[in-house]
Amino acid sequence: MNSFGRLFRISIFGESHGEAVGVTLDGVPAGLELDETSFEKDLGRRKSGKRGTTPRKESDTPHLLTGVFNGRTTGAPLTILFHNENTLSGDYKNLITHPRPSHSDWVAIQKFRGFADYRGGGHFSGRLTLGLVAAGVVAKKILGGKIRIESRILEIDNCNNPDDFPKVIEAALRSQDSVGGIVECTATGVPHSLGEPFFDSAESVISHLFFSIPAVKGVEFGAGFEAARMRGSEHNDPIISPDGTTATNNAGGITGGITNGNPVVARVVVKPTSSISSPQITLNTETGKPEELKIKGRHDACIALRAPVVVEAAMAIALCDLTLIAKSQRP
Amino acid sequence: MNSFGRLFRISIFGESHGEAVGVTLDGVPAGLELDETSFEKDLGRRKSGKRGTTPRKESDTPHLLTGVFNGRTTGAPLTILFHNENTLSGDYKNLITHPRPSHSDWVAIQKFRGFADYRGGGHFSGRLTLGLVAAGVVAKKILGGKIRIESRILEIDNCNNPDDFPKVIEAALRSQDSVGGIVECTATGVPHSLGEPFFDSAESVISHLFFSIPAVKGVEFGAGFEAARMRGSEHNDPIISPDGTTATNNAGGITGGITNGNPVVARVVVKPTSSISSPQITLNTETGKPEELKIKGRHDACIALRAPVVVEAAMAIALCDLTLIAKSQRP
Amino acid sequence: MNSFGRLFRISIFGESHGEAVGVTLDGVPAGLELDETSFEKDLGRRKSGKRGTTPRKESDTPHLLTGVFNGRTTGAPLTILFHNENTLSGDYKNLITHPRPSHSDWVAIQKFRGFADYRGGGHFSGRLTLGLVAAGVVAKKILGGKIRIESRILEIDNCNNPDDFPKVIEAALRSQDSVGGIVECTATGVPHSLGEPFFDSAESVISHLFFSIPAVKGVEFGAGFEAARMRGSEHNDPIISPDGTTATNNAGGITGGITNGNPVVARVVVKPTSSISSPQITLNTETGKPEELKIKGRHDACIALRAPVVVEAAMAIALCDLTLIAKSQRP
Amino acid sequence: MNSFGRLFRISIFGESHGEAVGVTLDGVPAGLELDETSFEKDLGRRKSGKRGTTPRKESDTPHLLTGVFNGRTTGAPLTILFHNENTLSGDYKNLITHPRPSHSDWVAIQKFRGFADYRGGGHFSGRLTLGLVAAGVVAKKILGGKIRIESRILEIDNCNNPDDFPKVIEAALRSQDSVGGIVECTATGVPHSLGEPFFDSAESVISHLFFSIPAVKGVEFGAGFEAARMRGSEHNDPIISPDGTTATNNAGGITGGITNGNPVVARVVVKPTSSISSPQITLNTETGKPEELKIKGRHDACIALRAPVVVEAAMAIALCDLTLIAKSQRP
Repeated sequence: MNSFGRLFRISIFGESHGEAVGVTLDGVPAGLELDETSFEKDLGRRKSGKRGTTPRKESDTPHLLTGVFNGRTTGAPLTILFHNENTLSGDYKNLITHPRPSHSDWVAIQKFRGFADYRGGGHFSGRLTLGLVAAGVVAKKILGGKIRIESRILEIDNCNNPDDFPKVIEAALRSQDSVGGIVECTATGVPHSLGEPFFDSAESVISHLFFSIPAVKGVEFGAGFEAARMRGSEHNDPIISPDGTTATNNAGGITGGITNGNPVVARVVVKPTSSISSPQITLNTETGKPEELKIKGRHDACIALRAPVVVEAAMAIALCDLTLIAKSQRP
Repeated sequence: MNSFGRLFRISIFGESHGEAVGVTLDGVPAGLELDETSFEKDLGRRKSGKRGTTPRKESDTPHLLTGVFNGRTTGAPLTILFHNENTLSGDYKNLITHPRPSHSDWVAIQKFRGFADYRGGGHFSGRLTLGLVAAGVVAKKILGGKIRIESRILEIDNCNNPDDFPKVIEAALRSQDSVGGIVECTATGVPHSLGEPFFDSAESVISHLFFSIPAVKGVEFGAGFEAARMRGSEHNDPIISPDGTTATNNAGGITGGITNGNPVVARVVVKPTSSISSPQITLNTETGKPEELKIKGRHDACIALRAPVVVEAAMAIALCDLTLIAKSQRP
Repeated sequence: MNSFGRLFRISIFGESHGEAVGVTLDGVPAGLELDETSFEKDLGRRKSGKRGTTPRKESDTPHLLTGVFNGRTTGAPLTILFHNENTLSGDYKNLITHPRPSHSDWVAIQKFRGFADYRGGGHFSGRLTLGLVAAGVVAKKILGGKIRIESRILEIDNCNNPDDFPKVIEAALRSQDSVGGIVECTATGVPHSLGEPFFDSAESVISHLFFSIPAVKGVEFGAGFEAARMRGSEHNDPIISPDGTTATNNAGGITGGITNGNPVVARVVVKPTSSISSPQITLNTETGKPEELKIKGRHDACIALRAPVVVEAAMAIALCDLTLIAKSQRP
Repeated sequence: MNSFGRLFRISIFGESHGEAVGVTLDGVPAGLELDETSFEKDLGRRKSGKRGTTPRKESDTPHLLTGVFNGRTTGAPLTILFHNENTLSGDYKNLITHPRPSHSDWVAIQKFRGFADYRGGGHFSGRLTLGLVAAGVVAKKILGGKIRIESRILEIDNCNNPDDFPKVIEAALRSQDSVGGIVECTATGVPHSLGEPFFDSAESVISHLFFSIPAVKGVEFGAGFEAARMRGSEHNDPIISPDGTTATNNAGGITGGITNGNPVVARVVVKPTSSISSPQITLNTETGKPEELKIKGRHDACIALRAPVVVEAAMAIALCDLTLIAKSQRP
C-alpha cells in the first residue's frame, strides 16, 4: 500500500519521469501555518548538486494543492505536488532488457508484468522521498518545538571522520564506484508512553517507515547490534530520576516497545548507490543470458549524503502518529 | 494495537501471571489440518528448561478454542489459548516501587497509570510470544512446503562458535549476568513480487514484526550494516538467470522493497536479558531517589537461545500476509 | 475481517456449538472498574426465554480472561469469553444437504468450501452478538455518563403499539411463522465534531457496525427514507442556538458526516427470523433439485425482540471509536 | 479518514473552490487500458446542467497525473485530478456568520475551529464525488464485464413515475424549494462468497461507502425496511438451483453478510438539497440569535438526479475491494 499511519496518514504517489510526484497527508490538525517556504530548509537539505550526488537539478518547489487556506491548514487532506522537470527519458530505455543489478528494475517488471513506468525507476525512484520530506516538515510542525529531531552521517565507506568524507567520495567517483554509509537520527524531548506493546511498538512503527526509504538495509536502536556483545550489567540502563532519565541510553529511548522519556536514538545503514559507472554483469532478458552492462547517466556516488533529512522525516512521521494515538489514550 | 496484518491478521492478548495468554488469527483459509500436535515441535523449541533459560516450567499446551472443526480450520477466526500455570506472583511485588532497569516496568506504570498487571511483566511478558509461535505454525502451513524458513544463532556474547555457546552462558551465569546474541533467519523458496514499493516494502513488514519481539533492538537484511563498508561494485548482486537468481545475495532477497526470488535473509539482535541477579541501580519510586536493586527469581541468562523459533514465526507471519496480498494482485 | 475500529478495536470469534464465543477489545483505557456483574444488565436484555424468543437457555456468564486486574481494566487487550452450554448438535446435521432459505448455510458451504462449522450456524450464529453486547458495555463505560444510548422497538409486523406486540407474536407462532421489526436507537449528549467528511462519516461508521448485526437489512438516520417525501424547506433543521441545537432533527444529529450536537437517531430493520417451522422450499444439494424442508428445533419467532441491546452496543462501539479519534484531534 | 478499502484503496482530497479536487487509487492492477476518455460517460452522467441541477458549469476533465504509462495502468498509485474552474467565491462569504441549515457549515466551523475552507462547502462539497465517480470507473474496469452495475431513480418527492419527474422538479423550483429521492442500485453477475461474517459483511462495506456520499440518509438491501412488514414465510428466499439462485430476492443478494450469487440490490435515500432559495431560520453566529437567511447562488433543486452514477461508483468500489479479498481466499 502507498499509505501509512493510523491517525496521521501519509500517502505517496508519482513517478520519477512522469508528470509529478506527491503526497497526501490525512489527519493534519487545522490551523497550522504553512506555505511553500515552510519546506525550503528541509527540501534544500535533500537536494542533489553536492559533490557525490547526481548532477540532475530540479527546483523541487512544493505545490500546495489542497488542504491549505489563507496560509493555514484546514484539517482537510493536504496534498503537495512536485512537478518533474529536467527529465531525460532517453537515458533509461534499456532498463527492460538489461535490468540494473540491485535496482528495482527486475522486480518491477515481474510484479507489474511489464506495465510499470520504467523511466528513471518510475514509482520506485528515490525522487518519491520528496513526499516523505514534505510530510516530515508537517509532522515536525505538529510535534511542536519540544521534540527536536536531528540526523547526521556517522560513517561513509568505513570512514567516520566527517572532514574526510569528501575524500572518500572523490575516491569512489574516481573508481567509477559508489559507497554506502550509516545515518544516526536522534529525537530529544520525546515524552514517555508513545507506542504499544508488541505490534505497534515504537521500534516497529519507526522501522516500518525507515525501511520504506529506498536503499535502507538495516535499522537499530540504542546500542543496537552492539548489544550482542554486551552483558546485561553493561547494557541495562539504570533509572536515576522520577522522570525516567536513565544513566545510560542503550535502549535508545524505548523499553518494552514504549518511549521512556530518554532520547530516541536510531541508526540506519544506506547501501552504496546501485547505479555505478563501472561495468557490471546483469541479465539480458531477451537472450536469457548474463552479459556486461555499463550504466550511463547521472547518479549519486553516495546516496547516504542525501539521506539524513529523509530519515529525520520518517522519524517525525512515526512520532507524530504515535503522539496523536497517545493523546487519545490520556484520561 | 494488539493486531497486525492486512489479510492474515494476528491479534495477541493475555498476561504472564493472569489466567492465560493467547492469539486470534483471522484470514486463515478453510481446510488446513490442524490440531494440538501441530504446534508441538515449534513450541518445544521455544521452551525454557535448557541451561541458560529460566527454570520456570510450563506445559505450554495450546488449546484450540475456536476456528477448528473436525481437525481442520473452518475459515472462521482461530483462537488459541495457553493457560498459565506455575505462576509465583509473590516474586514480583516490588516492581512498582523498584522498576527493573531496561524492563517495561517503568513505562507500563506511566502509560497505564498504575493499572497495568505488573506480575511477571504482565502483558509485556515474553510469554506472549507463545501466541507468535502458534501463529507462525499456522502461517507456515499456509505458505506450504515450497517456502522453508529456518533460524539459527549466529553469535552470543562475541562468540560465534555454536559449540562454545554453553561455556559462554555458564560464564555469564557464574557472574550473575546475562548475554545477548544475534539470530539469523533465512526463508528459501520465496517467490518474487511479494511486498510493495515504500510503506509496505517486504523489509518494512518483516521488521515491523521482528521489532514486536521483546528484546529485539536491531534488524538487518542481506549484507545489512556491512553495506556501509562496501562499494557498489561489491554490494550489487549481478542477475544471472531469467528466474532472477543473483550471483551474490547482499540484498537479502529484497530489492526495491519487493522479494526478488532469492532467499530472504535477515538478522536480528537480541539484547542481553534485562533481569540479572547481580545488584543494579534503579529508581525507588517512593523516595524518588536511585538505589540498589537485587532481582530475585527465575530468568533466562540468554533469551537469544529461545529466540530463533520466535523470529521464524515472525518471518512466516509476514510472508504469509504478503503472499495472500500478492495472490490478490495476480491476473 | 473479524475486527473493527481504529482506536477502540473489537474482534470477535467463536461458534454457536463450539466451545465458546468471545471478543477481544483493544484500546480500552486503563483504570475502568469492570467485573462480571458489569455485564449483567445488558446481557440480561439480550437473553432468550421470553415468549417469541428461542427456548434455548444459556447462563451467558462472561468470563474476563485477560486485561482486567484487581477489578479494573489494565489498558492491555481485554478478552471476554462465553462458554457454550446446552448445545444440541443433533438438530443441525442436515444443514449441509438442505441449506435453510435466507440463512448463511449455503454461502458458508461455498465460501469455506465445506469446512465451516455448520452446527447452529457456526460462526455466523446470532450467538456471536454476545461479544458485541459485552463490547457495548465497555464502550458505554468509556463514553461515560454524559452520553446516553437507548433503543426501543418501533414496529413489529406492521404493528406499532408496544402493548400489542405479544399478540402479534402469538399470531406468528400459531401460524408457525416469524415476524420482523424496526428498532430505533437514540444517543443523547453526543458532542459535536465526531466523524469525518466522506469515508469515516459518523453514518458510515455506525452503519458499518449496524449491518454487522445478523438480520439487519436497512439503516436510516433522522428522517431517513421519509426524506424522499419531504421538501428541503421541511427537512432542513433550523439552527437556533450557539450550541448547535436545531428546531427539528431530521438530520438525526449528523450533518456533513459529523455529529452536530443534537441527538443521534438511527433506525434499523430486523428481518423476520429465517428459521420457521412451516414447510419451505430449498435446494437438496445432493440431488441438485429443490424440495420441501421442515426445520425442527428451537428458534426466535421475532429476533427483533432481542435486537435493541445489540443495536445499542453497536452504536456505543461506533461512538466510542469516533470519540477517541476526536480526542486526538483537539488542540 | 479520507481513505477507504483494504486492497483497492481510494483516497480523496480537495475543495470546491480551491485549486482542484482529486482521488488517489491504490491497488489498481497493472495493465488496464485507461485514458481520459474512459471517464467521459460516467462523468457526463454526474454533470450538472439539466433542469433541476445547478447551472454551475465545469468541464470536469480528469487529469491522469500518475499511475498511467503508455495508456495503461502501471500498478503504482493512480492519481486523478479535476481542476476547479468557474468558482465564484464571492457567493459564499457569509457562511461563517450564517451557517446554512442542514449543511456542513456549522460542524465544519466547530470541528476545524474556524480554519476550514468554507467556500462552496470546501472539502465537504458534493464536488468531491468527482473522485468517487472516477474511482468507480476504474473499479468497474477491474470487475470486468461479468459484473454489471446499474442505478435508477425510483422516486422523487413521492412520485414514482419517471415521466413525471420533470414536473415534480419544476414545481419545487417554482416554490423555491428542493426535493429528495430514492435511488436503486443493482449489481448483476456478482459471484457468491464476497464479504465476511460480521464486520466486513458485504452490507457493512457497501453501506459504509454509500453513507460517504453527501445527502444519503438511509440504505437498505433487498426488501429492506419492508421486511418489518413481512412474515418469514414471505421474506425467505427459496434456493432453487445448485448455483444458489433463489426464487425471490428479498435478501438483496446477500445472506449472512456474504453475496449469494443473486443480484445485489440496494436502495439509498437522498435528502432534498439543503440549499433552497426560500427564506429559512438559522443562527447568526455573531449575535448568537436565530434570524432569517436567504441563500443566493446556484444549487440543485434535486441532487438525487445526479446521484445514480455516484451510487453506482460506490457499489463498484465496494465490490472491487471485496472481489480482490475473495481472490486471496481461494485455494
